[in-house]
Amino acid sequence: MREVAVIGAGMTRFGKHIDRSMKDLAREAIESALNSSGVSKTALEAVAVGNAMAGLITGQECIRGQVVLHEMGIGGIPVINTENACASAATAFHIAWLYIASGMYDTVLAVGMEKLFHADKQRSFEAIGSAIDVELMQQTLEQMKNATPEGGEGAGAGKSRSMFMDFYAEFARDHMRKYGTTKEHYAKIAAKNHTNGSLNPHAQFQTPRTYEDVLASPTIADPLTRMMCSPIGDGAAAVLLTSADKARQFTSKPVYIKASVLGSGRDRQTGDPEINERVARKAYEVAGLGPQDIHVAEVHDASAPAELIICEELGFCQHGEGGRLIDEGATLLSGRIPVNPSGGLLAKGHPVGATGTAQIAEIFWQLRGEAGKRQVQGAKVGLTENGGGMIRGEAAALAIHVLTV
Amino acid sequence: MREVAVIGAGMTRFGKHIDRSMKDLAREAIESALNSSGVSKTALEAVAVGNAMAGLITGQECIRGQVVLHEMGIGGIPVINTENACASAATAFHIAWLYIASGMYDTVLAVGMEKLFHADKQRSFEAIGSAIDVELMQQTLEQMKNATPEGGEGAGAGKSRSMFMDFYAEFARDHMRKYGTTKEHYAKIAAKNHTNGSLNPHAQFQTPRTYEDVLASPTIADPLTRMMCSPIGDGAAAVLLTSADKARQFTSKPVYIKASVLGSGRDRQTGDPEINERVARKAYEVAGLGPQDIHVAEVHDASAPAELIICEELGFCQHGEGGRLIDEGATLLSGRIPVNPSGGLLAKGHPVGATGTAQIAEIFWQLRGEAGKRQVQGAKVGLTENGGGMIRGEAAALAIHVLTV
Repeated sequence: MREVAVIGAGMTRFGKHIDRSMKDLAREAIESALNSSGVSKTALEAVAVGNAMAGLITGQECIRGQVVLHEMGIGGIPVINTENACASAATAFHIAWLYIASGMYDTVLAVGMEKLFHADKQRSFEAIGSAIDVELMQQTLEQMKNATPEGGEGAGAGKSRSMFMDFYAEFARDHMRKYGTTKEHYAKIAAKNHTNGSLNPHAQFQTPRTYEDVLASPTIADPLTRMMCSPIGDGAAAVLLTSADKARQFTSKPVYIKASVLGSGRDRQTGDPEINERVARKAYEVAGLGPQDIHVAEVHDASAPAELIICEELGFCQHGEGGRLIDEGATLLSGRIPVNPSGGLLAKGHPVGATGTAQIAEIFWQLRGEAGKRQVQGAKVGLTENGGGMIRGEAAALAIHVLTV
Repeated sequence: MREVAVIGAGMTRFGKHIDRSMKDLAREAIESALNSSGVSKTALEAVAVGNAMAGLITGQECIRGQVVLHEMGIGGIPVINTENACASAATAFHIAWLYIASGMYDTVLAVGMEKLFHADKQRSFEAIGSAIDVELMQQTLEQMKNATPEGGEGAGAGKSRSMFMDFYAEFARDHMRKYGTTKEHYAKIAAKNHTNGSLNPHAQFQTPRTYEDVLASPTIADPLTRMMCSPIGDGAAAVLLTSADKARQFTSKPVYIKASVLGSGRDRQTGDPEINERVARKAYEVAGLGPQDIHVAEVHDASAPAELIICEELGFCQHGEGGRLIDEGATLLSGRIPVNPSGGLLAKGHPVGATGTAQIAEIFWQLRGEAGKRQVQGAKVGLTENGGGMIRGEAAALAIHVLTV
């Protein structure tokens, strides 16, 4: 397979864009990615588009990418629409990579886009609820309702936003019990990400926070406070890929894709590694690198404890040592392995189907030394980890990418 | 790129499966495809899943494939969920092909699945309406409503089922005006497909029809009668792919993929070929074959006139000669170029996101001589054409595959 490079990236600011359509957000991200690469839209050979929830938010299923691209005058070429819940855009990136790696095309665009805010808030929650097995969820709620008449109120899918955070709270507590991790550790992660976000003009939240601020924000599900949970958001991010051979025709600073690995959840047997560990192991093997070689990472901190546990699973420290990693400041911008310099999902925001390409964009800028005030000094090797959905306690989809300059 | 082969196929009967879930339908198709190939589910390395409308019908967006596969004990491997309206399953097949052609994986499953019937019929129509630009549609309806107060009633997307057929009727009339094609020509196509369907145990409609029957069925939009329009349906179809090198480990009759080309619509300039012609030209070039080499074809006859015009665009006859092609009986099972031996969308049925893999399954069986009473004698080269969605008069997505034994 051919080596592939990223040569351009663009994104909107993430946030509440009530007055802007998904088309409008995607257009901004795509134009920005094209401009940054110097590739014209007529030179594109294919487009892969990630989006998770437009069907439920706007009624636009089926040809989500084409309706966005057509208005920009991009047409005629293959358009693959893909969804993998929160990992939709990383999946789109994986498909774009595959098209080039296979030798089929040379210049492919990957787009992630999402509009989650809706005048009817319940609709946003229901859309998020589609990232699990909806049928199973409805059955479970039926059973709960029959068992405890006071429970189970509310529409099936709509419950799952809080259920996601209940789940995160449960494994946060589990880690505390097993390893002596504290609520303060989680608060420090959130404070770091909010502070990083304050340095990122694309971030939804740009106010630096201390861990005291985080602890003082309202409790969502103990030990999680609001600032430890990723917000609802709108936004889009796009990246442009080409073959490593051709990359230098466009830029003196291509960012090479050393590994693109997609996985999905499964019922684990005793001793089986968790999905992140399993997919990371494969990605490191493909890249010929290990966790010790990574200079900067963007990971899926849908909640603060998720970041801590992901750091362990990616091998940035031993299992159970996540708390110590935080205490040492290793994941700070100035640390040994800076994590989520963009602000992560907690502060940059999490427009579900846009997150994966936004992570790639951030690593692209970091490795090129173009990350402004949040620049990780000397970063030459980066990693992205983008998880999506949930089936019986494991991520339904997970994509890890390793990039280098 | 490596050559890829199809080594197994399975599908449900298409039709009204009110009492069966999408999971249940997909399971039947997948198990049947695995059994026919002798490949165990644990040997699968990746799965690509096409579905167009579950988000709007069942609320299941995001991880449609995983929820189906997980219950069957298939997990851990990459799952790519894709949608391209009526061409969703052909897009999934294209991704599966790409995984193997690239050299990344050896054994990949492609699944198409759809459940369109819903207790609330309006919901089915609204889902179908998502195969166009929903925002544009709503704006158009608003304008229509303002211009003619008696028009424009009903929800935006819900109008588009009949609008698709209005569109087909318009270009059917256009062909009649330009080339002297008659309503009887369209009726003969529908009669052929219904009669072929009567020979196919997987078909939704299994009653042979004469062209008089077709003309006597209720008018939908002149010249289209009901039997000239594809029905709403539920169903699933799955096919198993492996590298040409490995195919003979599993079967003595692999079916090779000579071309897999995906395209999308665009604003055409004067003289630009229509999308089918453009994608077909590319597919023939890649396959090193021409229309004269095709022995059997499954094409996207969402309406009877569509089949006629597609035959011209694929080069089975000259432009404007479609009527003569029908009069000569060339597209009958016994003809020079049999089209839609399965019964096509008109009779086999059209569960939107399942149609693409069902077309591949039919060609797989035809080229292996396993198509029973509808077998095209001596068929060694087959073609599938699967179109999806619509943007300003062109298909939003289109996939053409050429297969041989």
